[in-house]
Formats: sequence, C-alpha cells, structure tokens
Amino acid sequence: MQAIVFDGRLKLTGGRPRPVPARGEALIRVTMAGICNTDMEITKGYLGFRGIMGHEFTGVVEAEGGRSGRLVGKRVVGEINCGCGACDLCLAGLEKHCPHRTTIGILGRDGAFAEHMTLPVGNLYEIPEGLSDEEAVFTEPLAAAFEILEQVRIGTSDRVLVLGDGKLGILCALVLRLTGARVTLAGKHPAKLGIARDQGVPVTLTKDLPAGGKHDVVVEATGSAGAFETAMMLTRPRGVIVLKSTVAHGTPINLAPLVIDEITVVGSRCGPFKPALKALARGLVDVRPLISAVFPLEDAKKAFAAAGKRNTLKVLLDLRKG
Amino acid sequence: MQAIVFDGRLKLTGGRPRPVPARGEALIRVTMAGICNTDMEITKGYLGFRGIMGHEFTGVVEAEGGRSGRLVGKRVVGEINCGCGACDLCLAGLEKHCPHRTTIGILGRDGAFAEHMTLPVGNLYEIPEGLSDEEAVFTEPLAAAFEILEQVRIGTSDRVLVLGDGKLGILCALVLRLTGARVTLAGKHPAKLGIARDQGVPVTLTKDLPAGGKHDVVVEATGSAGAFETAMMLTRPRGVIVLKSTVAHGTPINLAPLVIDEITVVGSRCGPFKPALKALARGLVDVRPLISAVFPLEDAKKAFAAAGKRNTLKVLLDLRKG
Repeated sequence: MQAIVFDGRLKLTGGRPRPVPARGEALIRVTMAGICNTDMEITKGYLGFRGIMGHEFTGVVEAEGGRSGRLVGKRVVGEINCGCGACDLCLAGLEKHCPHRTTIGILGRDGAFAEHMTLPVGNLYEIPEGLSDEEAVFTEPLAAAFEILEQVRIGTSDRVLVLGDGKLGILCALVLRLTGARVTLAGKHPAKLGIARDQGVPVTLTKDLPAGGKHDVVVEATGSAGAFETAMMLTRPRGVIVLKSTVAHGTPINLAPLVIDEITVVGSRCGPFKPALKALARGLVDVRPLISAVFPLEDAKKAFAAAGKRNTLKVLLDLRKG
Repeated sequence: MQAIVFDGRLKLTGGRPRPVPARGEALIRVTMAGICNTDMEITKGYLGFRGIMGHEFTGVVEAEGGRSGRLVGKRVVGEINCGCGACDLCLAGLEKHCPHRTTIGILGRDGAFAEHMTLPVGNLYEIPEGLSDEEAVFTEPLAAAFEILEQVRIGTSDRVLVLGDGKLGILCALVLRLTGARVTLAGKHPAKLGIARDQGVPVTLTKDLPAGGKHDVVVEATGSAGAFETAMMLTRPRGVIVLKSTVAHGTPINLAPLVIDEITVVGSRCGPFKPALKALARGLVDVRPLISAVFPLEDAKKAFAAAGKRNTLKVLLDLRKG
C-alpha cells in the first residue's frame, strides 16, 4: 500500500504491506489525515521516530481482529496512544502516560499517513452522522484543547488569555470560550486571529497586550520557548499557566516569579475525544476555516511543504477514492 | 536604638530612632531574630532593599497605636507581609500577594534586626506559654513549609520527595511527614540529613536516588536553579512539583517534560502562622537541632559571616538583656 514514511528522510512509498490487525485491533481504511506541528518536528528528528507518520485521521473500519465486528463499516476517529493495559497508569485510565506506550506516527507504532492502519478497538470512536470527515479529522487536536477543561477549573468570571494564534491556540480559545469565561486570544497574525474573532473570541496582537494586565488563566500555546516568561508576567498571583508548547530544547528561564506569585503551571497534552466529537457534531466549534489546503496522499511532499509555510494552518491529506 | 542596616553594605548602627507605631500597629521589643537565606541574598543586592534587615523574629508588645492594647506585654511572632487592605487580593485574604505590599526587612519596610520594630496588630500571633523564643523564632520559616499543605492535597499513600537539605528542605520534610505520607529527604550533607533522620524521616544522598524513581510530589527546596530538571525527572506523570527555591537568574530549562508528563508545578512562598505555631507548641516538629549558632545583635558581622558558611543551618540573634 502507499504510505508516507520517515526513515531519516520523508518518503512516499508504494511498497508497504497492508497491516494485519492483532486480536483486539481494527483494520482501518484511512479516509482523511491531518498534518500537525509534531509531524513537522518529526521530520527534523524529534523523538527519533522511524516508520509511517501521522496521528490525526478519519477512517472506515474494514475488519476487527478476533472481535464481534461491531465497528465494521463504521466511520471512526481514534485516540493515538496505546498503553500496555497492565501498569498502574493504564489501570487508572491514563494509557497516554503508560511508560511502555506506543503512539501512532510518533512513538514505536506506524501511523495514519497510509491507505490502511491498525489501532486497538478501544481507541476508536464512531463519527456521528452528519459530521464530515474534513471536520472529524480535527477531533485529535480539538481533544487536546478540551484537555485543559479536564485539568483546570475555569469559572465564568475568569479572565483567560490564550497566547499563540497557531492551530492549537485557536482551538484552545474556541473551546475555552464555551465555558462562558472571558477568553482573549493573543497572537502575531491578524488573519489567523480573525478565525477566532469570527467565532466570537476577542483577539489582540500580543504586542498590544497591556504590560500590567493580569489573567486568572494563561494558556501558553505559542510553540516558542521564550513565551513562558511572557506568560508568567501576564498571570495574576495564585493564577494558572496551562503549558501546551513542547519545546524540546533548553531556554534560559527565571522561575522566581512562579514562587513569588505562587503561580501554578499545568502541563497539558492529549485530551478526551468524546467532548471534542460532541462539540464538532453540535457545531459549537467551527474548524473548517482552519483548513489551509487539501492534497491527495500522492502529493505528500507538496503537502509537507505547504504545512511548513509560515501562514499555513491545517493541511489535510485526502485518501478517499473518486 | 541599635539595628542592622543594609544600605549597599551591611552595617551595625546605634543611631536609628525608635519607631512610632501608626494607628493599628504595635510597637514590639525584639527578643530573638533569625538570619534567613533571603537575608544573605539581600546583602548581595536582592530586590534592592535598603533599611533595617530581618523578618524572622520574636518580641514583646510594648504599645499599640490607637487600639485597646490587648497584646501589650505579650510575647508575639508576626506575619511579614503588610497589604494595602483595600485591593482584591487583600480582600481575599491574600495580603502577601498585594501589589502594594511592604514586607519587613525585604520590601519597603524596616525589619526585625533592631531593638524595636512596628507591625500591624493583625499580623501578630501570641506565642503559646511554654514555647521558647528560640523555637518560636522558627514560626515564619516553618509556616513556609506548612504553605505546601494549603496548596497541594497530600495523601497518606503518596510518595513525597523533598530535594534539598538546607533549613527549608528539612522543615518541609518534617512538616510533610505529619500527613502520614511516605516522605524522603534528599540532600548532599550527611550531617544536615541526620537532623531529619533523627525525627523519623527517611533520608538519602541525592546522588544515590534511583534514576527511574518516580514520586507523586517532589518539593524543590535546594535553592539551586539546576535542580528543577532533576525534579521533573523524579516526578511521575500527572504528579506535582512544589517549587520553593527562588533563584532570581535565568537558567536553561527544557520544559517539555512538564507537557509530555502533564506535571503540575506549584510555586510556594510564605505560609500560615497558626499551624506552624501549633506544631511547635505541641512538639510535633523539633527545630532546635537546626540552630547552628546564637550571637548578640552587637556581633552582627560575626553572625552574618557564620550564616554564610557552607555547613551552617540557622543563625540566631539574641536581643534579650541580661
């Protein structure tokens, strides 16, 4: 089958065997896939991943290994982490933190940029009728935004600031707005900010943020290491910083303000699919303006080139035939 | 009156006028005072403080400005932050985070290394009978350890690691042990570790900590910027780092593990006096082994020289006459 592989270089290959689902796994025909910043990092060597890339997808279940086949023929999305199922963290429902986990397209497991893939049936969620593949493929990144609500109590009178107008920043702002809190999105790109503004989120250029302005919750989603000190300055004493940016290199940071102002920092990664799917199905969050371009799998290199451009938001791969 | 003043250099002076309590303030005759690491930092320029130093003290109230005089003649300790009393943070009981606050011996207000000082009556707590001045003078640093229990829920089955065998690290370990949690203190100095071990806390040299050992809660109290990365490595996914060290310069830190493991970091500063005084009065924490030396106020320079030595713990100033 065709697949986008990273083996030190990005390659489109036609020679990969179709995977065979193990007991408890589903064989999925991929219909749509999204390119994420993590994919771009992987092409630069992040985590040393080798194999079929991709972790944002929609697909149709074609078979289940040793199971009832309840999902066969259904459209699905899937959680990307596969735990061992036996450790303390898995038993606590935290498979995504299992020390033995694999993660599709990121860590020790082939991903979704291929005609077919496999995943444990327990990872899959049926896509509600009426929700398009183009929208459902945003479930994974939208779930990462919903993760914040699993971790931090946000009240309707809270002043919430989201730093960063990339895909994740925009999705965080659109999700946190659903709480009724006073959410502002700050970024550097008027066009990107406009996507959130059009859905009712007040926006501002980061440089126009008042220096002494303090927020109850600041979400750091810039993807830039230097923004952490900005986030500290913009958080009130006893406030919360939600850290979404994974910047895998050290930057000089003075942590003293965390102590003096008794700020809490919450690291936040993948999130729950159910509320994300529900928000998409109900039209509470409109992800369609985030789509910058759609390419067929064959145009992998063009798609990655587009995804790497400064003003691009989401680039999708369309694997549907005809 | 005599006082230890920092005006760019550390000085003992006899020429300071006795302070006059404002309405709502008490005039306190200082009986005992402690030298803290913050005092050592102030002599190096921290926060640009100028004036009478000192924030750990015991004293006897001699007068109250415009009040009933309920505390006159009583032995007291006192909270060190004085809020404006009118802002949102003060009204929420968070005077210590008031943006207009003064702090004795640290920020805009004369401190306790003097024969007399003033403080708002509302900051004062009577020292229980039977508790010596030598012990009660530890109320302020012990309260900083109790602050952790105000911020983080610690269960009896939690694995808690305290990093740093300085005064604050030892006090944190002794306080957290009261929860019944499995507390370990890690440090570099066998003699200092011995003080906690003698009160029932398991101790270890930091270099002997198992590399893969994960803890539910890690308290970073080393005073060293580099220890934050160690703390991240020793915290389990979804665990908590309590940050006590204020290191006022930037150090390269890779924060990605916070996101990947969804770790929470809680900055922690001054704490509540009531539980600290109670623990001292009931003998739940024995602070006396932490006293390295006691000097009269006249020997200020000797006292600071002793406090700056590597193996010194608490140096006290005794201002009692006769």
